[in-house]
Amino acid sequence: MPVNLPSIESIALQPVNGIRLGWAEGGIKKTNRKDVLLIELEEGCTVSGIFTQNRFCAAPVTLCRKHLKSGQAIRALVVNTGCANAGTGDKGMQDAVSTCLSVAELFNIPAESVLPFSTGVILEHLPMDKLLAALPKAKENLKADNWADAARAIMTTDVAPKAVSSTLDIAGKNVVITGISKGAGMIHPNMATMLGYLATDAGIAQPLLDEITREIGDLSFNCISVDGDTSTNDSFIVMASGKSGVSFSSKEDEGFDAFYQSLLKSAQSLAQAIVRDGEGATKFMSITIEGALSRQEAKAVGFAIGKSPLVKTAFFASDPNLGRILAAIGYASRECESLEDLDTNTIALYLGDTLVAENGGRAASYQESDGQNVMNEAEIDITVKLNRGSESITVWTCDFSYEYVRINADYRT
Amino acid sequence: MPVNLPSIESIALQPVNGIRLGWAEGGIKKTNRKDVLLIELEEGCTVSGIFTQNRFCAAPVTLCRKHLKSGQAIRALVVNTGCANAGTGDKGMQDAVSTCLSVAELFNIPAESVLPFSTGVILEHLPMDKLLAALPKAKENLKADNWADAARAIMTTDVAPKAVSSTLDIAGKNVVITGISKGAGMIHPNMATMLGYLATDAGIAQPLLDEITREIGDLSFNCISVDGDTSTNDSFIVMASGKSGVSFSSKEDEGFDAFYQSLLKSAQSLAQAIVRDGEGATKFMSITIEGALSRQEAKAVGFAIGKSPLVKTAFFASDPNLGRILAAIGYASRECESLEDLDTNTIALYLGDTLVAENGGRAASYQESDGQNVMNEAEIDITVKLNRGSESITVWTCDFSYEYVRINADYRT
Repeated sequence: MPVNLPSIESIALQPVNGIRLGWAEGGIKKTNRKDVLLIELEEGCTVSGIFTQNRFCAAPVTLCRKHLKSGQAIRALVVNTGCANAGTGDKGMQDAVSTCLSVAELFNIPAESVLPFSTGVILEHLPMDKLLAALPKAKENLKADNWADAARAIMTTDVAPKAVSSTLDIAGKNVVITGISKGAGMIHPNMATMLGYLATDAGIAQPLLDEITREIGDLSFNCISVDGDTSTNDSFIVMASGKSGVSFSSKEDEGFDAFYQSLLKSAQSLAQAIVRDGEGATKFMSITIEGALSRQEAKAVGFAIGKSPLVKTAFFASDPNLGRILAAIGYASRECESLEDLDTNTIALYLGDTLVAENGGRAASYQESDGQNVMNEAEIDITVKLNRGSESITVWTCDFSYEYVRINADYRT
Repeated sequence: MPVNLPSIESIALQPVNGIRLGWAEGGIKKTNRKDVLLIELEEGCTVSGIFTQNRFCAAPVTLCRKHLKSGQAIRALVVNTGCANAGTGDKGMQDAVSTCLSVAELFNIPAESVLPFSTGVILEHLPMDKLLAALPKAKENLKADNWADAARAIMTTDVAPKAVSSTLDIAGKNVVITGISKGAGMIHPNMATMLGYLATDAGIAQPLLDEITREIGDLSFNCISVDGDTSTNDSFIVMASGKSGVSFSSKEDEGFDAFYQSLLKSAQSLAQAIVRDGEGATKFMSITIEGALSRQEAKAVGFAIGKSPLVKTAFFASDPNLGRILAAIGYASRECESLEDLDTNTIALYLGDTLVAENGGRAASYQESDGQNVMNEAEIDITVKLNRGSESITVWTCDFSYEYVRINADYRT
C-alpha cells in the first residue's frame, strides 16, 4: 500500500475556472475502466510542458513538443492509458496525429492546439477505433469539477489516484492551484510512465510560464526515483487560465513569490505521491544533499543513494547497513565529473538527526541502536553534508521489496 | 545456484612457477572458514593492478596504489575477507599499514613490497589481533599447487569458488595462466566487492604489464554488472613470474598476440564467473552493442540495458517485454553525452538471432513466440546494432529475482 498517501476523497479538489475535464471508458486495454481523458481549456489560457529525455520517446511526446512550439494556443489535452504509443515507428506518429485531428474536429480548433499523451505498453500500436470512439463520450461529460475522476482516468497500475489542490489569496483575490499525476515506477506493464498536470486560474505570460515550468519540474518530478529507469512518455504540463483576475508576467510581480512557492509545493506533492505509491514501496525516503559545488553535483549524490538497489533493499529490511550509503556517495562521480576530487574526510552523514559518519569513518558518537530506531520508521530522512560548496537539493525515493520484483516479473496479461 | 559455472574440481588448476599461495582460518568474522590468503612472489616477478574508482575506496586500495607506484618490486599479497576496512578513517589506514609491516617482517622484505586487500562489511574496523595471528599460519602452508583453496579463501558469500587455468605453447615453451576471483554482487553483508588475481609464468616488462592490465580489465571486469553498485574494494591484479622462459617487453614480440588473447579470455572467464554467481541469478545475459561511435557509447548502452531493474525482472520472468530494452537504449544518453543525437530509426535489436525491432518500432517479421523461445533459455544473447560507427563491446549481466531481494534484505548477521 502507498506510504502515507492521502486518499483522494480527503482532498477538497477545487475546480480551476477556465478548465474542464471529461473522461470515457474506451476499452483501450481493459473494459470497464476510465482510460481516456480530455481536458478543455478556454481561450486565453497559457500552457507549458517538460518531457522525457528518452531518445525512444513516444510519438505523442514528439507531437506535444511540436504543437507547443507552433505558436497556436493550446485548447485541449487528450490522454489515453493502456498503450504508450512508443517504439511504434511511422504508424505511431500517424496515430498520434489522427488523435489530435479528431479532437480538433470535436472542438473546432486547429490540430496544433491539441496536446496528446499516451501511457502503457511499449512496442504496441494504439487501438485507434476504440480511442476515436471514446473521444465524443469524454467530451460529453466535460465539467470543471471532475478532477478526482480525471486522476482515476490517467491511472495505469497505480494503487491509488494522486491529486493536490490549494488556494491562496493574492492581493485580495482567490487563486486556485489543482493538479493530478500518475505513475508508480516500472509497474507492469508500463515504464515509469509518469504524467503530471497542474492547473491554476492565475494568468501567467507564456515566457514566464515556460521558465517556471522548467524550474518547478526540476525541483519536483526531476527529483524522484523509483527504479532509475527513465520512461519514454514522461510529461509534466502546467496550465494557467487567468480567470481568477490575478496574472503574472514577471517574477517581480506583486504576490508572485507566494504563488510560485505554492505551485512548487503542489508539484512536489504530486511528485512525492508517485514515490509513496512506488511499486512495492514500504518506506518513503527524503535524501537531502547539502554543501555541493553545484546542483548537478548534489543531484548526482542524491540519486546515487536513491537508485542503489543495495541501499533500497537495506531500507526495506530496516537494516542500518549504512556503509552502503557511503559506497554510493563514493561512486556518484560516475555521473558527475566534478565529484572526482570529492574529499571523503569532510563529509558528514546523518540518518534522521543522528550523525552516522564523519572524518571518512563511523562517528565516535554513533550507536547502532539509534540508527535502528530511525530505520524502523516509514518516513526516513537522510542528510549528506558534502561541505564543499553552497548548493543543496532534496530527492525522494522508496525502498525495494519482494513485491517490487513480483509486480515487475508478472507477465504482461 | 550459479548459472553454468563449472565446478572448481572440474578445472585442472595449473601451478604458476614462481608463485606460491597459503591460507589460514583467521576467524575474522566467522570461525572455521578460510579467510586469510597470502600470495608469495619470487624475485623477478612483475605485478600490475587496477582498482575501484569509488571515492570512499578502502584503506588497502589506497595503500596498494601507493606501493605499486613506489618502485619496490611486489613480493607478497595479503587478502582478508569478513571486513572491508572501508569507511574506517585514519585508524583503517594504520591497520592496513600494520598488516603490510607484519607480512614484510615474515618474508624479510620492505613493507612497500606488500599489497593488502580486504573485503567484507564497510564502516567496521579490522580485528587486527586475529588477522596478524593468522599470517604465520598462512605462510606455513604456502605452496604452488594451492589455487583451489586460495579461490575458497577469498570467498565471502559467493555460492561457489571461481578459478580459471590454461596453458599455451609459445615458441616451443609451455606458458601457464591461472587465476581466481570472488564476488557475486552486493551480497549481504558486502558490496559488490570483486577481487580478481591472474598469474602467469610468462615474463612481462612492467610498462607492458601496466598497459595490458588496464586494457584487459576494461574488457573483462569492467564489462560486468550485477546491480550497478561500484564497491569500495574492487581490485584486479595481474602477476607475471617469467619462470617459463618466455618473456614479453612489447606487443610486437613473437607469440604475444596469442598470449594476450589467452590472458584476456582468462580474465573474461573470471569476470563472467562473478555474474554467473550473481546473487539470486537464474539467467546469464550477454549484451553486445555494435556500430557505436566510441567504446564509451557502446558501454553506456550496454549497461543501461544491463543495469535496468525493469529489464532484469522481465528476464527473471522469461517475459519478452522488449519495449523495456528500447526504453533503456533511449535513456543511455544520461551517461554518455554523445548519444544525445542517437537516431532510434537506425537501431536494430536482436534477441538471440531473432530481429525484434527496427525503424523505431517492432520488426514486421517478429513473432512473440520466437522471443519467448529465446527468453526460456538460461543463457541469452542480446544484440543492439546502433549503425552509427564501428566500435563494439559485450557486457555481461544476470537477472533480478526474489532471491536477490532476500539476500540483500537479510540483516547483517
